[in-house]
Amino acid sequence: MIEQAGRARTAAAALATASRTVKDAALVAMADALVARTAEIVEANAKDVEVGRAAGLSDAIIDRLSLNPARVAGMADGLRHMAGLPDPVGEVVRGSTLPNGLELRQIRVPFGVVGIIYEGRPNVTADAAGICLKSGNAALLRGSGSAAHSNAAIVAVLRDAVQGQGLPADAVQLLDAATRDSVKELMRARGLVDVLIPRGGASLIKTVVEESTVPVIETGVGNCHVYVDAHADLAKALAIALNSKTQRLSTCNTAESLLVHAAVADTFLPSALAAFAEAGVTVHGDPRVQAYDERVVPATEEDYATEYLSADIAVAVVESLDAAIAHIGRYSTGHTEAIVTDSVVASREFVARVDAAAIMVNASTRFTDGGEFGFGAEIGISTQKLHARGPMGLPELTSTKYVVTGDAHLRS
Amino acid sequence: MIEQAGRARTAAAALATASRTVKDAALVAMADALVARTAEIVEANAKDVEVGRAAGLSDAIIDRLSLNPARVAGMADGLRHMAGLPDPVGEVVRGSTLPNGLELRQIRVPFGVVGIIYEGRPNVTADAAGICLKSGNAALLRGSGSAAHSNAAIVAVLRDAVQGQGLPADAVQLLDAATRDSVKELMRARGLVDVLIPRGGASLIKTVVEESTVPVIETGVGNCHVYVDAHADLAKALAIALNSKTQRLSTCNTAESLLVHAAVADTFLPSALAAFAEAGVTVHGDPRVQAYDERVVPATEEDYATEYLSADIAVAVVESLDAAIAHIGRYSTGHTEAIVTDSVVASREFVARVDAAAIMVNASTRFTDGGEFGFGAEIGISTQKLHARGPMGLPELTSTKYVVTGDAHLRS
Repeated sequence: MIEQAGRARTAAAALATASRTVKDAALVAMADALVARTAEIVEANAKDVEVGRAAGLSDAIIDRLSLNPARVAGMADGLRHMAGLPDPVGEVVRGSTLPNGLELRQIRVPFGVVGIIYEGRPNVTADAAGICLKSGNAALLRGSGSAAHSNAAIVAVLRDAVQGQGLPADAVQLLDAATRDSVKELMRARGLVDVLIPRGGASLIKTVVEESTVPVIETGVGNCHVYVDAHADLAKALAIALNSKTQRLSTCNTAESLLVHAAVADTFLPSALAAFAEAGVTVHGDPRVQAYDERVVPATEEDYATEYLSADIAVAVVESLDAAIAHIGRYSTGHTEAIVTDSVVASREFVARVDAAAIMVNASTRFTDGGEFGFGAEIGISTQKLHARGPMGLPELTSTKYVVTGDAHLRS
Repeated sequence: MIEQAGRARTAAAALATASRTVKDAALVAMADALVARTAEIVEANAKDVEVGRAAGLSDAIIDRLSLNPARVAGMADGLRHMAGLPDPVGEVVRGSTLPNGLELRQIRVPFGVVGIIYEGRPNVTADAAGICLKSGNAALLRGSGSAAHSNAAIVAVLRDAVQGQGLPADAVQLLDAATRDSVKELMRARGLVDVLIPRGGASLIKTVVEESTVPVIETGVGNCHVYVDAHADLAKALAIALNSKTQRLSTCNTAESLLVHAAVADTFLPSALAAFAEAGVTVHGDPRVQAYDERVVPATEEDYATEYLSADIAVAVVESLDAAIAHIGRYSTGHTEAIVTDSVVASREFVARVDAAAIMVNASTRFTDGGEFGFGAEIGISTQKLHARGPMGLPELTSTKYVVTGDAHLRS
């Protein structure tokens, strides 16, 4: 790993000064190569799928692991799309001429070497490699052991393509996923690796956050709430609550809790509970919620703290906006919190006081997404406050540098 | 500490929604209170100075520790100046209307609770408290044990003033500095403390970076270089080299190494070495440098890696711009690197390829400073790439939040 990280640093120096033209050509070449060599990628993937089935992985996990020509083409399309995005490197973030005539410019520069730890979705391999390359960073990819053959095949293809465009192949490297050693080494490679992005389950993220000396950007865990205010349009509230919960069950921006202001509970909850039941969602409710529908199962403290990622939702009645904000403050993971209201006062209050990466006012929690936000590419959704918060696009994969130009300026 | 951090979180919630008017009134009240209660602060400080002298602290350290009415007034002036600065909270960093009509706004919000670990300069106590308050953050201040009486007196005054303006006194709290326990607890208080900023020596910073589970912003260590290019105006180069080294010896933006292109060594070095000798600076040079002046002492590998913070400078002759960049890449701490040149090609190359928080072109390294950059307030100089790099002003003490407003927008 250390040796690979050293090669990544060398590659990073070349990437940092590569022009957008060269980087975009490499992205297109990567896309072309994935399509041209689809057969070998799908063949390698078949081995992973076979091993996975033998190991008893669930159908859902096997589905996420599986590649076919259409999915490989999708990966290629993603890379071509990145080629069309603006280059974040070189953007002048701030600039001014100081009173003494010094010209001050704060300019985006690549981090250098980015480590990404992720689970068994091989499409992330191409995606992460592309985002890192576009932002001028060398990528150290540590995928799941379950996708080892697929990732090896994809990275081999991408490296050839990168090298074919005159950039160092070591811009994209795959780390050994056979043991956890590479994760441990990655976490201790301060000075060689500039930032580490763990994507995946809560326990992986917790481990990395606690043990890494390399700066970490935490991603992903979402216990998102929808709060239906006293001043909500209840038809809109129902549509938003259902969409937030059911549009896709297993994503981090899926709603896991519904809070209903007591003033509208009688009107809203009977129809909402029926709609959830019809959508196949189990409602875990407090006693007041249970009173509206016998299908509601009792909610425990644990329910309000759970990121279900399943057809379950915790529901509670709250006495006030303050109580809703307090409930969210207690259980939120700081990902996405939504309010449905027609009151400017209530929405201002909710926006100002709820501490989360994204606040939705009259919109589904499912919109917290780099694609939906128009970023064009997303490396994950940060739930920490340092450096990046919310969906991370290309600018979030850069640092900055101050360039100060003078004419023999001295400090006195 | 945990109990104090909990109170800081509560205070942070109030600070997050405090208006600029209220925060500025608190800053002015803090300034007024420092001046009004100068006597008790100076008296407390006298105890620290007495203990420090008895413990054999150096004159330089005693000087940094000592307060008198003029220095207290200086602290107050700093707070009044902060009141005049724009409020970073609420600034819209990015905003657009998405194709589906959703209004996307990325807005600056306070971090919440900021922990600051610093050494024996009591003026930092008022400064850090003020910067945190202005940026809407609660401050957990862990000063040096050597300044315990002074810090306790200052914080007592500041808390009274903050409370007098209707903000929670716990916006400013001093942690026990009698043992290292409070530092250890601070480093493990993830979830309670949002960011930790260690200021001080390299060993403190290394400990915090390695052991903290709370996100850290690393500050300060600077092994800064001045590179005199083949195309430099040599009179300007000499002025910049001298100013970078001697304008103040003990700061992180002081130059510690001088690199001279071989093409100008014969012309530049004799006068430069004489000028350094005259300024009382010991030159540690490679054999080619030694050949120009018998006062030059031999430089070891160690010299090029040292942040002297004293009247010493390491000097080397380099064959090319590439060699200068390579030398800097090997020994730089990523703080500030300067080139003196009249060549646009050379300066572009140096700016693009040298990896540091600040690059000076024809200017003294001493300009890397929040005050010089016009930030009005500075909490430290970050030498890491995540979140903030270079001098950190008020915006660097904030995170962001996405606010997305729609009218029953659903994801399909």
